[in-house]
Amino acid sequence: MLTDIERHALRRAVEIAADDGVPLGPNPRVGCVLLSPGGDVLAEGHHRGAGTAHAEADALARATASLTGATAVVTLEPCTHHGRTGPCADALLDAGISRAVIARRDPNPVAAGGIDRLRRAGIDVELDVPEELAAAAAHLNRGWEHGVRHQRPLVTAKLALTLDGRAAAADGTSRWITGEAARAEVHELRATCDVVLVGAGTARADHPTLTARPEDGARVPRQPLRAVMGTGQFPALPTPEGAGEAITLATHDPSAALADLFARGRRHVLLEGGPTLAAAFLRAGCVDELIVHLAPTLLGTGPPGLGDLGITTIADRLDLDLVEVTPLPPDLRLTLRPRAA
Amino acid sequence: MLTDIERHALRRAVEIAADDGVPLGPNPRVGCVLLSPGGDVLAEGHHRGAGTAHAEADALARATASLTGATAVVTLEPCTHHGRTGPCADALLDAGISRAVIARRDPNPVAAGGIDRLRRAGIDVELDVPEELAAAAAHLNRGWEHGVRHQRPLVTAKLALTLDGRAAAADGTSRWITGEAARAEVHELRATCDVVLVGAGTARADHPTLTARPEDGARVPRQPLRAVMGTGQFPALPTPEGAGEAITLATHDPSAALADLFARGRRHVLLEGGPTLAAAFLRAGCVDELIVHLAPTLLGTGPPGLGDLGITTIADRLDLDLVEVTPLPPDLRLTLRPRAA
Repeated sequence: MLTDIERHALRRAVEIAADDGVPLGPNPRVGCVLLSPGGDVLAEGHHRGAGTAHAEADALARATASLTGATAVVTLEPCTHHGRTGPCADALLDAGISRAVIARRDPNPVAAGGIDRLRRAGIDVELDVPEELAAAAAHLNRGWEHGVRHQRPLVTAKLALTLDGRAAAADGTSRWITGEAARAEVHELRATCDVVLVGAGTARADHPTLTARPEDGARVPRQPLRAVMGTGQFPALPTPEGAGEAITLATHDPSAALADLFARGRRHVLLEGGPTLAAAFLRAGCVDELIVHLAPTLLGTGPPGLGDLGITTIADRLDLDLVEVTPLPPDLRLTLRPRAA
Repeated sequence: MLTDIERHALRRAVEIAADDGVPLGPNPRVGCVLLSPGGDVLAEGHHRGAGTAHAEADALARATASLTGATAVVTLEPCTHHGRTGPCADALLDAGISRAVIARRDPNPVAAGGIDRLRRAGIDVELDVPEELAAAAAHLNRGWEHGVRHQRPLVTAKLALTLDGRAAAADGTSRWITGEAARAEVHELRATCDVVLVGAGTARADHPTLTARPEDGARVPRQPLRAVMGTGQFPALPTPEGAGEAITLATHDPSAALADLFARGRRHVLLEGGPTLAAAFLRAGCVDELIVHLAPTLLGTGPPGLGDLGITTIADRLDLDLVEVTPLPPDLRLTLRPRAA
């Protein structure tokens, strides 16, 4: 059980870990708060991306008072490996802490073991944190954790569909099928992923900028990498000021594209279209999450929102689990996951 | 304000009005409970369809004690017209009641005026009933009320769709796109309508029985009229024991079909398919309510769930208001209404 002060400190650790200025990518986002035995905050620290100090080291470096008997509140299990920085578990022990609150175990076999090491050294390790905070700590790094487990980025596919499954009217017009709330959410989604990927057809037809632009026009410090995938001719993406880097993936194979992005240190890909790209990733089993912005409108005809899945009979349909239904008036957001085989 | 006893009596009046054995059709379903000044139930009555006594007359006929000072609790405003039975407002006055609780005003100009007549005679008329009971009283007769106001039946269109708007796979197989809960609900829907209508294509392809069959195999006393609409060749509907009457409407015009059904005393039509019929009714502005059973599954190809609406550009899309979202695991039921122009 956590004390109120520790719960508050953990919430704060999640908050600083999630700092907008921290790049996503191959390293987990981690926050650390050091508390004195009396419950005062001695230091805060967070990881700022590959090549910088881990959150624990960052906090330890900022502490000016004695850490003997202190409590370390961290969002992720302290590491035990010698990378660019030394093992954080050892650094915490050396500093003299006597208790650690840890919101999430490290799924990375290379780095895990910190909890054991702390416990063997006689540290009181508390893992029983409130569910909401455990979920927030896990959500921080879901792309990174997916990468550790599956050696490829997490893939979220986003579709905007009419009730009857259309992505556009017969003449190709599609602005706007969804309302303002859904469209604003797309910009939020872009800011939470580290790649936005479209197919060559979408690049040709829409010339999308694929930037994360909040409604108030504010700059988003972290812009996703913008990738176009395909082997045909297509124009370069327009690059307004502040847009993320734009690259081309000269392949039609989802696995090859994801391997390339993974090698570039990317851990969460947002598939934004078009129907052919979404279908290719679904066919290849490369979609981990599907977000449908469903508009309560009908078109009857027009390009379908999803391409050919190679399914010819009902028994072979691609079933998904409906995880969440959220109103985005006038639309509905459905969050789904392909059913585990 | 209603007393607890009156509220209880009104709930009972709604319940007896909704008796499964009472046919839907050109007459409203009405329930009446007579309460003594001390709150005892003196009699209950309800209307049993065209040609039978109104609810108030039914209750009055059953009462054996004096009704002087009694309260009449009714689901619909008592009538003032001389039809097959005399005006109910007068009958209640003659019986000596001193208070009336009325859940719903009569939208029928021929029959309305009961509230005024009772009030002019010095009766204490209470219209301020709990919202839930007012809604239940209105819901009892929504087809009938629609008929009074628009001179055609209420039309509910039902579509079963995959997330990507398909009604079947490429080879035509469609059993089953939706799960058991959604399929069971279709039988409930049939039992609450007085016509189930399909197009000739569906009659040819599916040979549907269109009966209301509860999961437990029990008989539903009230089976909908089963109608096939179209001018081509199509087989007669199969007619299992207990099925409703089957008819043919030799037209492609939704308005003509609805006029025919209205003249037959029908007030609530369930459109069950196929895509062409649904599209024809939507194009004609003849759908009042759309129920979508949305299955969290993808097909990519296959016959679309909705036919051509004659819409070629996004600005002409057919917008609907999303009224309700209800889980029918694993599916979702969306209830929508075409947006008022």
